[in-house]
Parts: sequence; C-alpha cells; structure tokens
Amino acid sequence: MYSNLWVEEKFEDIYGMRFKVENVLFSGKSKFQSVDVVETKGHGKMLLNDGLVMLTERDEFIYHDMISHIPLFVHPQPKNVLIIGGGDGGTAREVLRHSLVEKCVMVEIDKMVVDACVEHIPQTACELNNTRLELIIDDGVEYVKNTNEKFDIVIVDSTDPIGPAKPLFDVPFYQDIYNLLNDDGIVISQGESPFYNQEMQEVLLNIKNKLFPIVQILNFSNLTYPGGLWSFSIGSKKYNMVNDFDPERVRKSNIEFQYYNENIHRSCFSLPSFMYNRVGKYLKD
Amino acid sequence: MYSNLWVEEKFEDIYGMRFKVENVLFSGKSKFQSVDVVETKGHGKMLLNDGLVMLTERDEFIYHDMISHIPLFVHPQPKNVLIIGGGDGGTAREVLRHSLVEKCVMVEIDKMVVDACVEHIPQTACELNNTRLELIIDDGVEYVKNTNEKFDIVIVDSTDPIGPAKPLFDVPFYQDIYNLLNDDGIVISQGESPFYNQEMQEVLLNIKNKLFPIVQILNFSNLTYPGGLWSFSIGSKKYNMVNDFDPERVRKSNIEFQYYNENIHRSCFSLPSFMYNRVGKYLKD
Repeated sequence: MYSNLWVEEKFEDIYGMRFKVENVLFSGKSKFQSVDVVETKGHGKMLLNDGLVMLTERDEFIYHDMISHIPLFVHPQPKNVLIIGGGDGGTAREVLRHSLVEKCVMVEIDKMVVDACVEHIPQTACELNNTRLELIIDDGVEYVKNTNEKFDIVIVDSTDPIGPAKPLFDVPFYQDIYNLLNDDGIVISQGESPFYNQEMQEVLLNIKNKLFPIVQILNFSNLTYPGGLWSFSIGSKKYNMVNDFDPERVRKSNIEFQYYNENIHRSCFSLPSFMYNRVGKYLKD
Repeated sequence: MYSNLWVEEKFEDIYGMRFKVENVLFSGKSKFQSVDVVETKGHGKMLLNDGLVMLTERDEFIYHDMISHIPLFVHPQPKNVLIIGGGDGGTAREVLRHSLVEKCVMVEIDKMVVDACVEHIPQTACELNNTRLELIIDDGVEYVKNTNEKFDIVIVDSTDPIGPAKPLFDVPFYQDIYNLLNDDGIVISQGESPFYNQEMQEVLLNIKNKLFPIVQILNFSNLTYPGGLWSFSIGSKKYNMVNDFDPERVRKSNIEFQYYNENIHRSCFSLPSFMYNRVGKYLKD
C-alpha cells in the first residue's frame, strides 16, 4: 500500500490524467512493450501498456460493450469471429455472450498481457478458457496474411499506433482482413479520439473507405480515456449498422448490458458537427 | 510565460486532470469564490471557479450548444429566456443567435466572473452588450423569487453545488422557476456527471420529477470535464424534447453549429444502460 502514488497518462505535454494507485500488482517488460497492472483507488484494477491506460475495472464495460455488440447484433449469422489484440479478454468475454458465435479466434501478440490479466484481472480474462475460444499468441498482421479461415466479423481491439500496434494502422493489414471476411463480413476497429487523435482517426477511415462499400463511425464515452469521447470505425461488405439493425434481436437475446442497449446502438452513430465536418467525406452508407 | 506550470482538477483524491499553463491572466477572490483565467497550452484560455474548470476556449462550444439549442429548437416561441449564472457569456451568445428571442435576462451572482471574461475571454463574452440582453448582477435565487417577469425558457448554467451555487440544487429554487415559466415553459440545468456525481444528478432529477409533467436528461461529451460524459436535465410543462422536435426548424435557422445538429438533438437523450437503470425512475415523457 503506497501513500501517494499516482499513475499519469499525458497527451503531448498539454494534458494529463492521473489516477491514485494503492498497489502495484504487476510490472513487466515484454519483447513488445511495458505491461503494468495497478490497483487504483476508486477505479478498480487498471492495465497499462507502455504507460497508456488500456482499461480499468470501473469502466471497461463501455469499450467492450460497444466494440462487440454493435457488429454482433447486426450480422445475422455471426458464427466465426476474429479478435486481433484484446489480450485483456474483455472483448472475447462479450463476443462469447452471443449464442450464435460458434468459434472466436483471438490473436494477441503479447503473452505477457494475457498472463497478467489472467492472474490479476479475472473480470476481463474470465472467458479466456471458454471452449469456443481459440487463443493464439502471434502477430495479428501475420495471422491475417496467412490464415485460410474465413470470418463473419473481425474486431481490431488494438492500442494506439505505437509499438506493436503500428502495422494495424496500414492498408495491407486491412486488405488482408477484407480478404478473409465472408461476403457479408464486418470489421470494427478502435478508432481513436475525435478530439486528440484526429489524424489517426482519418487514416483508419480512409483505409476503410478505399476497401469497403459501407464505412461508418460511432462514438462512446469512456471514463478513463483522455478527452472522454472515443470512437470505433467500421468497414462492412453488406450491412449498414443502423439501417440493418433489428432491435428485436437485442430484446430476444436476454443479455443484460451495462452500457449498450438498442437506443445507444442507433444514437452512437450521430456525430457532433465538428466531427462530421471532418470525417463525413470518408463515410459510406 | 512559465516553464512547467500545471493546473489540476482533482476528484475525491482518486482522479486528477491536469492542463499545461503558459500564462496566468487573472487571479481574483470575490465575495463568492476564487476566479482564475489562465492561458493553457493546447486548450486556449481557461476559466476556473474555486479551482474547478468551467470552460476552455477549445471545447466550450459543446456545453454552450447543448444547454441552449435543445430547448430553443423545441419551444415554438422562445421570446423570453432567463439564464441563471453563465457569467462567462457563452450561453447568452448561443441563445441570442435565435432570432425568435426578443429578450434574454442573465442573472449572474459574481461580477468578477463577468468582468474577467469580458477582459480575457471575448470568445464567450462577446454578446454581453447585445441590446436584447439584460445583464443583472444579483443572486439568481432571489431573482426568481421576486421577479414579476414571465419566461419561456430558463437555463440554469451553474457550477457544482458548492459555494454560491448550492441553493440552485434545492426545491424552492425550482418551485420559483416553475412559477415564473409560462404554461409551456422549459427549464434546463447543468446536470452533473453520470460517472462521478450521481447523487447530485439524482437530486436534481427528483426535484424536477416532483414539479414538472415532463422530465428528461441528455448526455454530451466534454473534453475538459472529469469523466468526459456530462449531462443536462430538463423539466418541461408541455413539450417533449424529442417528440416535439421538428428538425426542419434547425435547417431553416441557417445557424452553423460546432457540436449540435438535428441528429445529436435526438440521440443525446439515449442513455447508457447503467445510467438508465439508475435515473429512469425520475424520467417522465
């Protein structure tokens, strides 16, 4: 127990978010990045990669609800789902709540993230030994290039474009994803902050715009990401996330959500004017 | 110019938000509170009351768009508007963009806030000498108790319930507002953080629930408030903010917005499940 320890995430020397730390549970340095798990005061356990907040137990439900349930409640037969990254297990946990999912492959590059979460953050890692999950420790870029498997949904649950996640923001990666998606497949990716990471947000949308007939972006509000507002962007071969959404499926699923619901599903695609004015040109519906 | 000066807003010793400061433009202590204006790096000028971030030039448009345009685009004849607080002038600026508004009365308790913003933050204070604006330096609680004027819309643009804003979170204040509103009047108030100020959010909703036939709450994402997500709550005598909203009015207004638009108008009332589960019982539509 420390008396005055804080963990801080800074943005470009103009902004910082600090969280009070009561205990450091794990600190490691893998081949790819530094990995830390701390016990915060008031936000539960927190995972940091290279010093950036990945999740806290208090608000991880928001990110994991929105990256999973939007595509999974739109695709009519999401049998095979691929997760790139997502080592904490939270996305896999939400995907596996859908009974239509027969197989979920999760390709995480950094075993240390998985191991640290299995040991210290069971709240997110709880389904990593689910029999429908195949966990592969490998480079997601290599996996999508080489696999012969086909998927209905691909979820790119990555960090920011630094360290191991850098190639996940390039065209070849998304071309490979396009190729391994079935003809009505959907890809959804961590889409960066509309306030602080506008450039990378546009890079991702531009890539999807070049490859997919349908391109959309949604917003949600995270508690522990800088600036609050965060986004996921979507490339889809057939389905529009709003027009092809049937709220009846949500009601029939009997899944209880902490953030997601049928109203949020539709409204999260409404963009503030400053954001629409900037990214509207990449969108296709 | 300071080399390493930061301003920090803390929440209950669990969380802090820090902004790099390049210059302190004004520091005063009024009868009611401390008032500071600083020049930040990357967020423009910032107003702080009692050390809490009130606004930055970079994101003030979000708060001021959402507290003004939601009721003003729903009420069919918003001729008389009352603002309680709002000393920085940003809310008055947005209200006065509506040509239907004949008179806007703004009652700010703290002259020091107004003077500091007139001198240092013209971006928000620019309309404070508009001929349709009547600026009164007085206690808003006393004003609503004693005035004989009637209003179509009341906007409670207040700080958190500490210092001078404390009575603005009590029943008598809202009873007086109810009485001075016309038969189809609307009140909208700063509604606190769904993450960090749940108790005060419920207090405000409960007061409105007891007095008004229609009670609603909307969310928006601020860049510089702790937790990102923030809310405004609404009590209305006649109009529902979603069902009685005609997007045609927005299009015809020819006003350009940075945050608000007709899609945002509707979608901001979609609540995340964790929030609906808590506050749904106060809502009436």
